[in-house]
Amino acid sequence: MTALSPTLQLACELIERPSVTPADADCQAIMMARLEKIGFQCQSLRFGDVDNFWAVHGSSGPIFCFAGHTDVVPTGPAAKWQTQPFEAVIQDGMLRGRGAADMKGSLAAMITACENFVAAHPNHSGRIAFLITSDEEGPAINGTVKVVEWLEHQNEKITWCLVGEPSSTDTVGDVIKNGRRGSLGAVLTVRGVQGHVAYPHLAKNPIHLAAPALAELANEVWDEGNDFFPATSFQISNINGGTGATNVIPGELEVVFNFRFSTELTADILKARTQAILDAHQLDYSIEWNLSGQPFLTAEGPLVEAAQLAIKAVTGSDTILSTAGGTSDGRFIAPTGAQVVELGPVNATIHKVDECVKAEDLDKLSLMYEGMLKELLA
Amino acid sequence: MTALSPTLQLACELIERPSVTPADADCQAIMMARLEKIGFQCQSLRFGDVDNFWAVHGSSGPIFCFAGHTDVVPTGPAAKWQTQPFEAVIQDGMLRGRGAADMKGSLAAMITACENFVAAHPNHSGRIAFLITSDEEGPAINGTVKVVEWLEHQNEKITWCLVGEPSSTDTVGDVIKNGRRGSLGAVLTVRGVQGHVAYPHLAKNPIHLAAPALAELANEVWDEGNDFFPATSFQISNINGGTGATNVIPGELEVVFNFRFSTELTADILKARTQAILDAHQLDYSIEWNLSGQPFLTAEGPLVEAAQLAIKAVTGSDTILSTAGGTSDGRFIAPTGAQVVELGPVNATIHKVDECVKAEDLDKLSLMYEGMLKELLA
Repeated sequence: MTALSPTLQLACELIERPSVTPADADCQAIMMARLEKIGFQCQSLRFGDVDNFWAVHGSSGPIFCFAGHTDVVPTGPAAKWQTQPFEAVIQDGMLRGRGAADMKGSLAAMITACENFVAAHPNHSGRIAFLITSDEEGPAINGTVKVVEWLEHQNEKITWCLVGEPSSTDTVGDVIKNGRRGSLGAVLTVRGVQGHVAYPHLAKNPIHLAAPALAELANEVWDEGNDFFPATSFQISNINGGTGATNVIPGELEVVFNFRFSTELTADILKARTQAILDAHQLDYSIEWNLSGQPFLTAEGPLVEAAQLAIKAVTGSDTILSTAGGTSDGRFIAPTGAQVVELGPVNATIHKVDECVKAEDLDKLSLMYEGMLKELLA
Repeated sequence: MTALSPTLQLACELIERPSVTPADADCQAIMMARLEKIGFQCQSLRFGDVDNFWAVHGSSGPIFCFAGHTDVVPTGPAAKWQTQPFEAVIQDGMLRGRGAADMKGSLAAMITACENFVAAHPNHSGRIAFLITSDEEGPAINGTVKVVEWLEHQNEKITWCLVGEPSSTDTVGDVIKNGRRGSLGAVLTVRGVQGHVAYPHLAKNPIHLAAPALAELANEVWDEGNDFFPATSFQISNINGGTGATNVIPGELEVVFNFRFSTELTADILKARTQAILDAHQLDYSIEWNLSGQPFLTAEGPLVEAAQLAIKAVTGSDTILSTAGGTSDGRFIAPTGAQVVELGPVNATIHKVDECVKAEDLDKLSLMYEGMLKELLA
């Protein structure tokens, strides 16, 4: 057996700690010990039951921040895994285990990238930072949001933020995320009047009343998207009405829906347009909105350029800029004015059984991260 | 305390037997004993766990049949009743107890009507019959349906059928039912493709696909009704789609709906028109139909006329012919070619706690039933 690279060794060490949200299982202690060794100043920040930390190398100038999370999603039935989920196994060139791709592999690559960069450039310009949480996969209340608030109180501003989320599609670095759509959820309750199906004139069927409004919402073109974002999308995820009895007209209908929206629109515009459609159908309704993420975009500039150059230096290929997919903690950091890019391993197996990454991809990722530091801080 | 009338005495005796479907609790034995005493030939017909009986007085000619049921719906929490549900109490002129209105009061009135009529007309023309079940409020499989089949095997045909269901709205005899709408139910499953709300292009949302079709079904004018029937009505009773998660587009939507239809249409026409609408919206669906009752109508003729005359003789008022409301066992008897009319007490409290009828209404009802016998068989 050949010796493992430092990045793979550290990735294995982190994977073997069962840090299901919000547990950190001492992953952060391992990371901080490595960072302190090379001169980082580390600060543990525990909010509620969530461990977070902030670490800085250098004393002034723009901050390049690595952001990520030590928590992982549950394994599901361990018996469905080919290997034990919290046992790091390298097999046929693949590193297997929960968190290998999302995102303990990235965390290891960040650490070794810093170790190599700081060794070569002990007096680099600017500052390197880490913003690490153990609540990215969970409620995301006592994690990055709280650390960002704490940074604001310190008057610290992140200039460039590299989120280690698994952004890649087929090969490491083929796609980076330079923004994300916003996410606006709602629970709509349409009220009617309950009654017996044999006496419809004494009832008001909320399903009948809502159907044309829902058809119109589903058919609405909210925007056309733009160069960076696909068109805003409206999706009903849940609809429930009825008492279970086949002869009763229900008194209420509940509809849960979600917008994934581009920077062409705001949450307030979506709310107003939705309510205008509901009002036009003269529905008696109430609606509870939940804005879980503003859209953000890092269109051009030093950070995106640094990522493009660093990736090309490692893989020889151009990377694709994308704003597709779900949300990430980048949504909490971008509003502070930071440029934000997500670059991490291939995301094909995240949140699934048998989560894995190509072992050599983590070494490449470490080189990419180091390359970005060189571009921006050498 | 004044002595109770024979009708009220018998009604109390029946109410005090807790005959929740399919239990008969010997109500039928009490009825048969009374009928045998005045010369009826009675036949117990037990199908499955359901007691039924058929009784006949007279040897030939047209049959006037009293149809009804000894079973009652459950009481719900007895603590919510002002009186014990299976204790017959007469208070402030009201007879209280489960079944007082639906339909032990009617059964008592049928018996005393026959006693009085047979005493006065021992050699009446035609025949008087009883078709009594203890499964009207339940699945209705081993009750009237089976007795009607048995009658067909005997080559017996009911000419005129008086169903004792509580047809009256404000005062006894103000409304009789001379028909009922049909009832056609369906469970519709619309199939899509499950997916993540962030990747709608990889999914097909069955709620979005179905909404315009449901709007069209709800808006469709199926017919205009006719002189005897209100317009056919379509009602969605239940709609359910979604995994519960707010970020998942569900793979299926289930919609339960029901038609109450007039004699202007048939179940097959409704099925075809529904499916044409679903097909026009290019839905991938399956549908399970359940025809629970054909519409029937007894428009004109001796039975309706006898009821009108008998009611007017007792109350001095004209009765209203109606086909509104739910289904009754008349739906099983009408297809044999019988004329069918429903006449019974005020239905305001049926199936509720504190079920009750005006005590004097049962005596009036007995006179109405007796009057109909006189019109048709004296």
